[in-house]
Amino acid sequence: MPYYTNIIKKLSADVPFVGPETQERNLGKKFKSRLGANESVFGPSESVIHAMKNCIANDIWKYGDPENFDLKVAISKKLKISIKNIIIGEGIDALLGYLVRLLVKTNTKVITSLGAYPTFNYHVNASGGQLILVPYSNDHENLDALLEAVKKNNAKLVYLANPDNPMGTAIEGTKIYDFIKNLPEDCLLCLDEAYSDFAPIKYIPDIDINNEKVIRFRTFSKAYGLAGARIGYAFGEANLIRNFDKIRNHFGVNRVAQCGALASLNDKKYLNSILKNVELAKSKIYKISEINDLTYIKSFTNFVAIDCGKNSEYAKKVMENLINLGVFIRMPSVAPLNRCIRLTVGNDLDLDYFASSLKLAL
Amino acid sequence: MPYYTNIIKKLSADVPFVGPETQERNLGKKFKSRLGANESVFGPSESVIHAMKNCIANDIWKYGDPENFDLKVAISKKLKISIKNIIIGEGIDALLGYLVRLLVKTNTKVITSLGAYPTFNYHVNASGGQLILVPYSNDHENLDALLEAVKKNNAKLVYLANPDNPMGTAIEGTKIYDFIKNLPEDCLLCLDEAYSDFAPIKYIPDIDINNEKVIRFRTFSKAYGLAGARIGYAFGEANLIRNFDKIRNHFGVNRVAQCGALASLNDKKYLNSILKNVELAKSKIYKISEINDLTYIKSFTNFVAIDCGKNSEYAKKVMENLINLGVFIRMPSVAPLNRCIRLTVGNDLDLDYFASSLKLAL
Repeated sequence: MPYYTNIIKKLSADVPFVGPETQERNLGKKFKSRLGANESVFGPSESVIHAMKNCIANDIWKYGDPENFDLKVAISKKLKISIKNIIIGEGIDALLGYLVRLLVKTNTKVITSLGAYPTFNYHVNASGGQLILVPYSNDHENLDALLEAVKKNNAKLVYLANPDNPMGTAIEGTKIYDFIKNLPEDCLLCLDEAYSDFAPIKYIPDIDINNEKVIRFRTFSKAYGLAGARIGYAFGEANLIRNFDKIRNHFGVNRVAQCGALASLNDKKYLNSILKNVELAKSKIYKISEINDLTYIKSFTNFVAIDCGKNSEYAKKVMENLINLGVFIRMPSVAPLNRCIRLTVGNDLDLDYFASSLKLAL
Repeated sequence: MPYYTNIIKKLSADVPFVGPETQERNLGKKFKSRLGANESVFGPSESVIHAMKNCIANDIWKYGDPENFDLKVAISKKLKISIKNIIIGEGIDALLGYLVRLLVKTNTKVITSLGAYPTFNYHVNASGGQLILVPYSNDHENLDALLEAVKKNNAKLVYLANPDNPMGTAIEGTKIYDFIKNLPEDCLLCLDEAYSDFAPIKYIPDIDINNEKVIRFRTFSKAYGLAGARIGYAFGEANLIRNFDKIRNHFGVNRVAQCGALASLNDKKYLNSILKNVELAKSKIYKISEINDLTYIKSFTNFVAIDCGKNSEYAKKVMENLINLGVFIRMPSVAPLNRCIRLTVGNDLDLDYFASSLKLAL
């Protein structure tokens, strides 16, 4: 048999997430509402769809530009940084994988929050790293405890999502700034800002792009409605960014995604309309929670964690009932977060169906 | 600064290929003919374009199915194997990267041909592996020498492209069958069949799907005209395939690519018409070579290696002249292959322009 590395031999083939299509195949029916993966049911704008269709018709036979040059230029203008500070990838998931490979080898200590993004943990395990998990505090990632864990374990990498997934909470930018300042010189903060488009400016830290202690991740999968296109980016100090060129799949980003992402950045009006839609939908979800005597956690994202008010078994049962009724949702994986279910915002039809289903599910 | 792994510290940030868009930016003008990356200028069929456009309009907001289930079912029918024997990825490049990570750690010995696919070598370097390079023999990859190198070095992985890139030659399936039979039990053949759609059946080895000594790679980027979509697959023994789930980017394949690849498999008539177009175009390239007193290497792919008849400096100069005239082409990287330039088949307009440009370039 093939001669696998020791890291591979020890790994299980568990997947970070079971996709909704797999669940549909298991259930033998399609979901009526798809509200479990924090996608944007509103999709991209007409101008973006038009641009992507043109790309399909004329250019799909060509590999995408491995430098992602045009998109990097557009992002550099938006963020007022150099293109040397930007790396584009086939979704944040891929970029997290590359980052981990730059820094993590067998037994490298890595800090993250207990219940935070499973795919980050998956990548750390795949490089043989050792995860140290820090509990949330009051449904927020706990900066003081994360910093303490970094120092105690001499960790080289620490993960933080802000706004957070799966709870939807956010930490003020000034606090994250201080967290970075207090990190040891050789520890990097992996700051996942997938949901930052939905948060007020005070939750976005103001960090010098030449700061070597942080790298930030953004995506077109959430607010921009392009999850199926698989495109995201990271930005940070130029040497760190350049190191991605040592290991990344240079031709990995597809041409349609490059085209769609570029068109998305040129349609600010649409983005603003989406942000309004998301806020309205969240208000609606808050109300649905209240009507059902459930509490919710105020969200800075495009989803809401709803506290089912009892233990994890109860929340799980509510989730399973909703899934059986045709509503795809997910829930946090560990206590105490798993007293909640997690619902992505939907359109009116989705939320009406969720409201009626929730009554039954409870 | 970040605490990079030892492997990363030693790696240069060289890219395997400079893309045509980068060259266009450097030249300050667009290429008139894009014949350097073995893409299919003929593109996908109308039915495929239609399906992909529909996906953009309706489903681009959804992540793709991480199991790639529907596509795996279609491929399993085509190849008469189980879906457990198939893994889909964001292009062969990504799948090669995953395979290398399964088997290669610091100092693992890996065999490939001197001048074969640079991206495979790139992945081996990124895992700290040690490449042992075996010269071509008469413009063919040399099976006897590859086998000898495997045994001498106790190598765990050996790469072979059949049909070959960059020379376009092919090795008969029965010879590859024997090669696999003679491999040590713990050495895996990475058989890159990206160009197999263009080759007669006798060049495709008949191998038991449960054979643990080989994994085969195919793509939608070449004959199917979907290079920009980024989708390919590998097939082999089920345990080996399952190991990809330990490290791959589960949500890495984009939804439009899944849709396009699936539609492609349903349009066999179009594939046959493309194969005819490619043969006609190759005949035309052969004639252009002859008219210019150049020899060509009979090709089993969608490109032709043209022997410029002198040394590598001369071939390089011909290539550069063609590039300056607006014809994007590439050439092999090492002697003695680099006496040639490599030209992808084009449509009539492309080849007429190439013919007139070649006269000037020589």
